[in-house]
Amino acid sequence: MLLNEARLDDLMARERLDAVIGTSPENVLYLGGYWAMSQWVRRGPQAYAVRLRQGYRAPIIVTNSALLDLVADQEIGGDIRRYSFFKTDVDSAATLSPADARQVELFTTQAYPSPVEALVSALKDHGVAAGRIGIDEIGITPQCMEQLIAALPQATFVRSFLLLEKVRAIKTPEEIARLRRAASISEQAIDAALAAARLDMTEIEMARVFHSRTTELDGVPVTGCIGFGERSAMSNVQPSTHRLQRGDVIRFDVGCRYRHYRSDISRIAVLGEPAEKMRRYHDALYKGVQRAYDILKPGLKVADLFDQVIETVRREGIPHYDRSHVGHGIGIEGYDPPNIAGNSSDVFEENMVVCVETPYYELGFAGLQVEDMILVTRNGAESLMARDGRLRILG
Amino acid sequence: MLLNEARLDDLMARERLDAVIGTSPENVLYLGGYWAMSQWVRRGPQAYAVRLRQGYRAPIIVTNSALLDLVADQEIGGDIRRYSFFKTDVDSAATLSPADARQVELFTTQAYPSPVEALVSALKDHGVAAGRIGIDEIGITPQCMEQLIAALPQATFVRSFLLLEKVRAIKTPEEIARLRRAASISEQAIDAALAAARLDMTEIEMARVFHSRTTELDGVPVTGCIGFGERSAMSNVQPSTHRLQRGDVIRFDVGCRYRHYRSDISRIAVLGEPAEKMRRYHDALYKGVQRAYDILKPGLKVADLFDQVIETVRREGIPHYDRSHVGHGIGIEGYDPPNIAGNSSDVFEENMVVCVETPYYELGFAGLQVEDMILVTRNGAESLMARDGRLRILG
Repeated sequence: MLLNEARLDDLMARERLDAVIGTSPENVLYLGGYWAMSQWVRRGPQAYAVRLRQGYRAPIIVTNSALLDLVADQEIGGDIRRYSFFKTDVDSAATLSPADARQVELFTTQAYPSPVEALVSALKDHGVAAGRIGIDEIGITPQCMEQLIAALPQATFVRSFLLLEKVRAIKTPEEIARLRRAASISEQAIDAALAAARLDMTEIEMARVFHSRTTELDGVPVTGCIGFGERSAMSNVQPSTHRLQRGDVIRFDVGCRYRHYRSDISRIAVLGEPAEKMRRYHDALYKGVQRAYDILKPGLKVADLFDQVIETVRREGIPHYDRSHVGHGIGIEGYDPPNIAGNSSDVFEENMVVCVETPYYELGFAGLQVEDMILVTRNGAESLMARDGRLRILG
Repeated sequence: MLLNEARLDDLMARERLDAVIGTSPENVLYLGGYWAMSQWVRRGPQAYAVRLRQGYRAPIIVTNSALLDLVADQEIGGDIRRYSFFKTDVDSAATLSPADARQVELFTTQAYPSPVEALVSALKDHGVAAGRIGIDEIGITPQCMEQLIAALPQATFVRSFLLLEKVRAIKTPEEIARLRRAASISEQAIDAALAAARLDMTEIEMARVFHSRTTELDGVPVTGCIGFGERSAMSNVQPSTHRLQRGDVIRFDVGCRYRHYRSDISRIAVLGEPAEKMRRYHDALYKGVQRAYDILKPGLKVADLFDQVIETVRREGIPHYDRSHVGHGIGIEGYDPPNIAGNSSDVFEENMVVCVETPYYELGFAGLQVEDMILVTRNGAESLMARDGRLRILG
């Protein structure tokens, strides 16, 4: 299961929530296990996943009838409420597969006219219509939110996007396995791109190799900041027709999705002999991230990690180094808590997965960066990377 | 330019709007030409693009300081308002590129504490603080919307997501060029996947070929419904380890982004000799889409196209054929207006780009579908496809 059920129960109890409703694609997937395609590829389509604090323990799913095939194929259990018309025919002579039989069964249920009517019926049937209801405010349209409030005048609604982020911060074993694989895919795709590097190659040509390798490994491309030379100093550099020259930095700040879980890693290479400043600065940034492995464990204050990483980079070679954060959690979302910043009041906990990063952008010179995905273990930290972030020198 | 400026002016005038604010990634890109990466890959980060009806004609952009490199690199003109802290160093000895010099200049502007403060300052400076303001309600968080309303008590806010969809329905030449390329990429990726088809191949293996070819052609994978045999009857079928057998239908309902513009096309193949029912049904669906080419032109009622397509499929071989729509517009979004449904009151106009589709799902049998991307021209319709939707028989 993706959901950290014990942590959800705990945080719902603290906030005295009777129910919590996921509305953004990430939270519908997290709470319900349900990947509702249309909300991932368009703006507006509504799907919800509800969890109750007491009583019914399975998820309650609200979905368009056009997506019932995914409910069946993904073997989503629980209380499924569908809305809108959708036509699927059945070959009455055929022996149906279990998924098709389940889909037929789902089509025998009542179709509500709208997502909110389906949701309201579920909340009423499960006895929380007058309860305290957490709602992820990011995925529900304002129109639907108004309808929901009007339909349940006795309910109290509490915005809960941040609460769900907090739940998601501590990963379950299934989530860790997916994140590990996502990191590995992006790392292998960087290796493939660097293996293809050659003088006069364009950034776009290298990005093609990178993304194609990602897809061959069953990753879905998400971010591909790949820049050469001075362009690498643009923090979000998007591949262009700019061509690789000898002595250029090649910066990757890249990631994918693997079974809906994200990677976000960064590596630096140089074609040929790096300038002395590149070596020195990169070494400082590398040591900044390595410092995290020395001290990261449950109980460490997030702000302390921030301070130590910044201080290490300054001491090791970039005295003017300054950042608002040196990393963040990662999961279904690219940025889960904690945000590794100096003003954080969070503390690291076992089974957090975090990106620790030390980017440095100097216009006219280059962008350098190390970013590793790291699992917080019971007693320390474990890299999800196969290779460390040292500067790579291409022949 | 992506924006259809004349149409925006016209629709703003009809609604008496003094300003319109794009908040979702698609509308920020459409109104401002600005691709603000963080809002495309995460939920919550705020970027806005504002257009005024009178006075200032360039876009007003509100963006996080961390994305100013993209403003510079994308050569975004207009009034740029930034918020939040971000550190970029500058090599004082270097001669900066034009993009880097522009970034340095942008960093000299005031950094507002929050996106709404940046937006409010712009609306005040441009004299519309007490105006009638259209706001795309999909991308702004409820918290930001509340702050905006509180900060501009004399303004009237009108939800304008649908108005912006209406503007986007009529494409500019640049948009048509991108859509043409997006369609071609997906068509070529289907060809590559079918060329790789072999007995016992899994759906996932075929999807790998499809998506890798998409990325090699500079497309970004978005949808990849690829199913074999009875699984093809699942409308949103996601590739699995199911293996291709002789006589199986292979259904593609797939698409990508090319320079942010979407494709959505569908093709059907059979490995070996198709059953007679597959041929007959697919031929009816194919003729349904071909009917669109016969009659589609500016002035045709959308509901009439719907009726004619449905009637053609019924007459040509599937008497029980039933659908809620037979297609939709396409652009930055997968579903732009018009929705080609029987209850539509829309009329086709020149430079609409629409997907016309005739899916048929029969559990226990197969899913069959033809979906073409079609440009409405001055006097008729032009296919954006290189090959038509006839059933393909693989040896």
